[in-house]
Amino acid sequence: MTRNAPITTRNEVARAVRSALITYGYADLRTAHIADASSKSEASLYYYYETKSELIAVFVRRAPTWIDERIKEIDATNPDERLRKICDCLLFADEDDQLYGMRIAILELLSHAAHNPTLQEPLENYQDHIRELLATEIQAAISDGIYRQTINPEETASFLMTILDGATGSVLGLEMQGIESDVRAEMNRYLDGLAV
Amino acid sequence: MTRNAPITTRNEVARAVRSALITYGYADLRTAHIADASSKSEASLYYYYETKSELIAVFVRRAPTWIDERIKEIDATNPDERLRKICDCLLFADEDDQLYGMRIAILELLSHAAHNPTLQEPLENYQDHIRELLATEIQAAISDGIYRQTINPEETASFLMTILDGATGSVLGLEMQGIESDVRAEMNRYLDGLAV
Repeated sequence: MTRNAPITTRNEVARAVRSALITYGYADLRTAHIADASSKSEASLYYYYETKSELIAVFVRRAPTWIDERIKEIDATNPDERLRKICDCLLFADEDDQLYGMRIAILELLSHAAHNPTLQEPLENYQDHIRELLATEIQAAISDGIYRQTINPEETASFLMTILDGATGSVLGLEMQGIESDVRAEMNRYLDGLAV
Repeated sequence: MTRNAPITTRNEVARAVRSALITYGYADLRTAHIADASSKSEASLYYYYETKSELIAVFVRRAPTWIDERIKEIDATNPDERLRKICDCLLFADEDDQLYGMRIAILELLSHAAHNPTLQEPLENYQDHIRELLATEIQAAISDGIYRQTINPEETASFLMTILDGATGSVLGLEMQGIESDVRAEMNRYLDGLAV
């Protein structure tokens, strides 16, 4: 049985999983790494969480809040500029190593999700959160007359999210520099094409 | 020391790793799973390959050939139609479970590559191969006067590859149906926009 952990424990677990995932990646992650990154022993982690996957789920559920905190710092004069800065932030991670590591870790979890049912719902919620974040700006840009009325905010948001996820693999994971500059150039051209 | 394995052994290892990755995913993959999927014992695998990563690298090096075999079956009357069918094939895997499983497995390896130097070069070659495959069709479509002369084949190919990788996570990994139809619609619109 999984006991309900207090909020302070949940927050500490989320931070410890994030830190351990950034260091080891999901495939090499052991519960001992999570314990080492927290003030808790492995035994006390297992008091609240039965499996490693449940510990990782705590991190995935917390991730949207961290993304929001990072996005909140963005300064932009209109929704188009804001959307571009959000994409830059998620894609090239603005030399923010913690965000960079978190985005790669989530891509690794996403690509393993078919084999791990515990992670599926938190990951879907995370993806929906990112998509919603992008759709909100696209909708605002349409309302403000910056983007064409015929643009579909949901389809465009799903498409952009997909690009950001894909680039996480080649650009952040493999550090293929050519891909980074190509994707930057073509994504900007794509966003230019949304304008009236 | 890693001994040079004969071609028949390499091919068998590549097929066994593919099959084991499709069943377990990279994070849960053990060398015993690879041995179970082949005619070899774990000990005889270790005669040629020192580590699990080296076995996986054999699969990644083989993957472009499998992609090519699949792409070769595509019937199209012009490069634009051919490009769309290649994207469909890689993105939605055409109900081909082996291709589907292989694409997810490679995304999982890609997102763990920062932690596994052995896989980096084979993965970069795989990504370059896919990008080249797409760039060839885009270049042909420009030469045939179907796409605009101003289109940059390399940037467009990197962008498309990135979309295909990203969609592998949400569409194939998490099976988010909404994302599949959104990405299909918006990618077709994007490809329409390349035309003269």
